[in-house]
Amino acid sequence: MSLGTIYGVGLGPGDPELMSVRADRLLRSARHVAFFRKAGRSGQARRIVDGLLHGDAVEFAMEYPVTTEIPVDDPAYNAALSTFYAECTAHLRALAASGEDVVVLCEGDPFFFGSFMHLYTRLKEDVPVEVVPAITGMSGAWTATGHPVTWGDDILTVLMGTLPEDVLTDAMTRSDAVVVMKIGRHFDKVKSALRAADKYDTAWLIEYASMPQQTVQKLSEAGDKITPYFSIIVVHGQGRRP
Amino acid sequence: MSLGTIYGVGLGPGDPELMSVRADRLLRSARHVAFFRKAGRSGQARRIVDGLLHGDAVEFAMEYPVTTEIPVDDPAYNAALSTFYAECTAHLRALAASGEDVVVLCEGDPFFFGSFMHLYTRLKEDVPVEVVPAITGMSGAWTATGHPVTWGDDILTVLMGTLPEDVLTDAMTRSDAVVVMKIGRHFDKVKSALRAADKYDTAWLIEYASMPQQTVQKLSEAGDKITPYFSIIVVHGQGRRP
Ligand SMILES: C[S@@+](CC[C@H](N)C(=O)[O-])C[C@H]1O[C@@H](n2cnc3c(N)ncnc32)[C@H](O)[C@@H]1O
Ligand SMILES: C[S@@+](CC[C@H](N)C(=O)[O-])C[C@H]1O[C@@H](n2cnc3c(N)ncnc32)[C@H](O)[C@@H]1O
Repeated sequence: MSLGTIYGVGLGPGDPELMSVRADRLLRSARHVAFFRKAGRSGQARRIVDGLLHGDAVEFAMEYPVTTEIPVDDPAYNAALSTFYAECTAHLRALAASGEDVVVLCEGDPFFFGSFMHLYTRLKEDVPVEVVPAITGMSGAWTATGHPVTWGDDILTVLMGTLPEDVLTDAMTRSDAVVVMKIGRHFDKVKSALRAADKYDTAWLIEYASMPQQTVQKLSEAGDKITPYFSIIVVHGQGRRP
Repeated sequence: MSLGTIYGVGLGPGDPELMSVRADRLLRSARHVAFFRKAGRSGQARRIVDGLLHGDAVEFAMEYPVTTEIPVDDPAYNAALSTFYAECTAHLRALAASGEDVVVLCEGDPFFFGSFMHLYTRLKEDVPVEVVPAITGMSGAWTATGHPVTWGDDILTVLMGTLPEDVLTDAMTRSDAVVVMKIGRHFDKVKSALRAADKYDTAWLIEYASMPQQTVQKLSEAGDKITPYFSIIVVHGQGRRP
């Protein structure tokens, strides 16, 4: 019997119409569908495909053992996630071994800061794995602002809010266009770095880009509440434009 | 009579299956389709939608008056392009005024270094314009390498090969992951910057990502020939991975 294939399928920023034609096709015919979620939550990736999956699809929810309870630099965090990914891949490997294809749902583009990457590196030597790229959350976010993000030879830097403030400030200062992801509890630090880099006044905050609850506002008008997980800050470049 | 809408529709990196479901739907029903191309060429955007357009679709080819004949910092370059964009938008405006919708084909994501942006800024105050984001060429490129581009809190910088060598070297040195676009005649300069930033040996060169003629190779094995317009260099980040 031949091995099944594991498909890492990017779903795009959230609007099901922004999925690729290939993702749509794979999803509608999938017999096995796996996805990550926080324990007790429905999971954003799973939500995007609501109503699209085949009635007989078998679902495999991979529930993170930790999210923000343990700091990422604590060895216990790594150990917990390592065990978790090993368990997930054991299940996927067993399905593939029995000849079944599995579609793994991925928010945005799978190879761009995605959780699927951790399964991918553990599986790819033994099992056929295919990756379907997708529209990133940041493309959804800058499109929502109604302003192009980069012109001419603008330099674009993508930064995680988890980085130290001085690293953020330095990178922001040296860039024309900036994207900040994973903001959440790091909101104040990110704002302070943007101020130091003289980019605070031109920054935009986009929550839930392309989803029904999308919000788009100038960062300076956003207030101080912690942002949701699906938040992105965009500073547009101002490069050459004939 | 109500105004028509101008749709800036991102087509993704080249594989028609990587178009979004919305792009696919808009294209199949479009009565007016506009696209940029070099004079005498069929144009990549138009090529992606071959076989998808409605038989009765009216096509409007917007042919660049200059590409590399005049340096981009020559005022004559700006003047020629300005006139060109004004002519294109006059035509689109007239179609919209007569109540017609127009789909403008865009390679990759329209708001990410796209030519459509120049039409968009000229039209958006007077005519309804909608932008459909898409998979970028760089997502197509890093997916083709078979390696995730960013992990943990890697810093990703996107650079144009047209930048000065010292700017390239500096930005490459300070980043974990790097994407270089618009390489062509700047190939030697880009390679030399990568060497100075100690990233040459780990860089990949992807030509025609997701297109039939796609090539993927380590940059160090690529030889010295000028790369085609559709080329991207990717240096993968090596961040945290449990
Ligand atoms: C683990 S990363 C996943 C990135 C994803 N693979 C992509 O291509 O966009 C999670 C971060 O992506 C960003 N993000 C992804 N999609 C988003 C959306 N639709 N709206 C706002 N933020 C989004 C948020 O900053 C979030 O913290
Ligand atoms: C004017 S920019 C357009 C970028 C486009 N809007 C995007 O989202 O990718 C043109 C550059 O994009 C890159 N590019 C776009 N699609 C590509 C592909 N499929 N393969 C290789 N390079 C590509 C090349 O570096 C090219 O010089």
